[in-house]
Amino acid sequence: MELDTIVALATPAGVGAIGVIRVSGGKTIELVNGIFKGKDLASAKSHTIHLGTIRDEDVIVDEVLISLFKGPNSYTKEDVIEISCHGSPYIIQQLIKLILSKGARLAHPGEFTQRAFANGRFDLAQAEAVADLIASENESMHRAAMNQMRGGLSQEIKNLREELVHFASMIELELDFSEEDVEFASREDLKKLIYSLKGLITRLTESFTLGNAIKNGIPTVIAGKPNAGKSTLLNALLNEEKAIVSDIPGTTRDVIEDVINVEGIAFRFTDTAGIRTTEDKVEAIGVERTYAKMKEASVIIYLIDMIHDTLDDIQQQIAYLRDLDIPYLLIGNKLDQAKAEIQQQLAADGALFISASQKQNLEDLKAKLKELVSLDDFKTGNTIVTNMRHYESLQQTNDALDRVLNGIDQQITNDFLAMDIRHALHHLGEITGEITTDDLLDNIFSKFCIGK
Amino acid sequence: MELDTIVALATPAGVGAIGVIRVSGGKTIELVNGIFKGKDLASAKSHTIHLGTIRDEDVIVDEVLISLFKGPNSYTKEDVIEISCHGSPYIIQQLIKLILSKGARLAHPGEFTQRAFANGRFDLAQAEAVADLIASENESMHRAAMNQMRGGLSQEIKNLREELVHFASMIELELDFSEEDVEFASREDLKKLIYSLKGLITRLTESFTLGNAIKNGIPTVIAGKPNAGKSTLLNALLNEEKAIVSDIPGTTRDVIEDVINVEGIAFRFTDTAGIRTTEDKVEAIGVERTYAKMKEASVIIYLIDMIHDTLDDIQQQIAYLRDLDIPYLLIGNKLDQAKAEIQQQLAADGALFISASQKQNLEDLKAKLKELVSLDDFKTGNTIVTNMRHYESLQQTNDALDRVLNGIDQQITNDFLAMDIRHALHHLGEITGEITTDDLLDNIFSKFCIGK
Repeated sequence: MELDTIVALATPAGVGAIGVIRVSGGKTIELVNGIFKGKDLASAKSHTIHLGTIRDEDVIVDEVLISLFKGPNSYTKEDVIEISCHGSPYIIQQLIKLILSKGARLAHPGEFTQRAFANGRFDLAQAEAVADLIASENESMHRAAMNQMRGGLSQEIKNLREELVHFASMIELELDFSEEDVEFASREDLKKLIYSLKGLITRLTESFTLGNAIKNGIPTVIAGKPNAGKSTLLNALLNEEKAIVSDIPGTTRDVIEDVINVEGIAFRFTDTAGIRTTEDKVEAIGVERTYAKMKEASVIIYLIDMIHDTLDDIQQQIAYLRDLDIPYLLIGNKLDQAKAEIQQQLAADGALFISASQKQNLEDLKAKLKELVSLDDFKTGNTIVTNMRHYESLQQTNDALDRVLNGIDQQITNDFLAMDIRHALHHLGEITGEITTDDLLDNIFSKFCIGK
Repeated sequence: MELDTIVALATPAGVGAIGVIRVSGGKTIELVNGIFKGKDLASAKSHTIHLGTIRDEDVIVDEVLISLFKGPNSYTKEDVIEISCHGSPYIIQQLIKLILSKGARLAHPGEFTQRAFANGRFDLAQAEAVADLIASENESMHRAAMNQMRGGLSQEIKNLREELVHFASMIELELDFSEEDVEFASREDLKKLIYSLKGLITRLTESFTLGNAIKNGIPTVIAGKPNAGKSTLLNALLNEEKAIVSDIPGTTRDVIEDVINVEGIAFRFTDTAGIRTTEDKVEAIGVERTYAKMKEASVIIYLIDMIHDTLDDIQQQIAYLRDLDIPYLLIGNKLDQAKAEIQQQLAADGALFISASQKQNLEDLKAKLKELVSLDDFKTGNTIVTNMRHYESLQQTNDALDRVLNGIDQQITNDFLAMDIRHALHHLGEITGEITTDDLLDNIFSKFCIGK
């Protein structure tokens, strides 16, 4: 079936030096040839660029550069043309209107990538990584998305599938010979294989904690008694990042309040406003609420006020902190006016000393913060699951494998075993898109931007 | 002198399907080759596209398409590379950082176009039109900018210069033979030539009124007594346009309040809030203030309230309107509840009937509004001066020519005539950029966007 020809602006809306309009589909070259005055695009080679004018009848809409990609050597594997025009919203609007009037239709969000997937350019997990890549805001998001787009996860799933298919083939073979009651593989060997598969799946599902943290930021709490300097520290960290971002013109973006990139890792500071106490409330309540927040965090930055906290206070706080069993950084704040005995005590407890208001030693704090986060998978380049959908499919695969194990133990018949294995294969296939539904695809691609 | 290699994001900032980073300068190919894994760009042909990865050491920053333009067949006439990357602000930032670290520097606003001008790709008036084209928001702005970019104004200036140079050559020839007191051209013929040149310049300077209106909107006032329906009409016109704009996804732009595009012409509605009266003020004062606003307008839309205005009122208002000698549209509003005798009277005066609240007959109103504006130059495709700088240079040329005429009449010596002609040539040269100063260029190009 030949799909219709689609068009969309591929660059962000707004005024810029240039805008790029993307056209894909069977009629692309014929359509653009009809409005382009320049080289005949039908006879031009793929991957060439042509200067000319786009005309609506005899009115010049713009002088443009046409980039020509002939299918299957294109993003969608269809004929694709990218029109690089002057970056005026008016001109872009006129060009798109003109192309629509010649028989194209507006592309849905993600429709170019959906066609690339449908035409076998990459699998579903890779297509999803394209959207993650575009949304990536720091080094770790970028690295995880790039790994997935280049087939990291897909390869792991493919390996799992191959093992399972091998397993299934043995079971099915026994089914063919079921009247003869043969056993081509010992049940113990089968169980070992399933355990090994479950091991691989567990590693992937466990990586989702990190993957999720990478994508949404590691839940972090800055805790400490009122006036320990929590918001001063948060603001100091936030402001510094904003300054770095604005160093490079043209890349300004809305920094989501309270998410801070520390050397490529996003830390999401959950609302710490709630843990502040007002003067007419008992201080203890404030501390209790701080503790409640701390219990939900993945990482805690605990601030001690080295001017006002007492030695007793501090011992109590550290004891509580240790009991929580959550990675924490013990920080002695107000270094510029610290009481000597307090600093001495904290040094013994391995604290780091800063002055949030003077922005002193914040680099050390960041370095230590990054150390707190287990990035072993990251460092070794292991595949990390970052997508909830993939995580759920892996869980369901695992459940099916549990049923297989259970079935072997209960000596159920091979046809039931085969059914559970098919379930496991089905859920793996959902990840890479061998198994899809229109709803699923619509749901995935509708989250893409227009023009991708 | 080899200029340094410059880099900038050429597409608008923000998240999009793709971003395009532009690099220009002598080291472009060498620099990008050093970070691009794919085809060797030094040996690739101009105007070709290459898929590959950009790497920072062994880390893949992105999968990109490289568009290669080898000088002088490029926008700047230098070697130019455009990197089409995934439209993530993070990735764009990383790519630009990487390119900077390899020895490029960030381009100033308009620096690519400034190089194109410096390298003779087009003259200064054409370069300025590039910025106008990008800023164009409607058909008439677009058409004027496109005409200028494609050399419309430049050709007129060139013709003027040639005539002047011809004139100057005759004067200079006489200077060479000054001791012999010859006259190679009759003074009357010279005066005719100057008059003809002044005629051309006057046509251009007069077009600036239209040009300025095209660029900034035609000053328009909706007038009428309080409660005639002025703001209802303005809102009806504004809302309709907003609806049209949002029809095409991806082209949303900030509509400047109170500028309305009517069939490709921008009408700028000056603040009409000031002409409203409050209940405790005498109505007459409000009307006076309306009149004051009307006198400043280029076009007036005058609303009669066909329910509440009396016949006497109306006659008075129309008489005043005629005296103003400003193009106006007489509108009978509240058509749905109009008094018959009022409507009859207005029909005799050639009024158009609408209901602003019911949005009735607004298309007729727009069509008539457009007719009111003299667009003769536009219709005939004549060159229109839209730039204040060009207008001033033309005025100064004209002044110099007046001094020449005056000199001929007063029979001053040829060397003084020659000086005034050189002044005229100087001011023409400012328009096309034969005559420039660094300040002038900085001033012009600093108004461009980054990446152009």
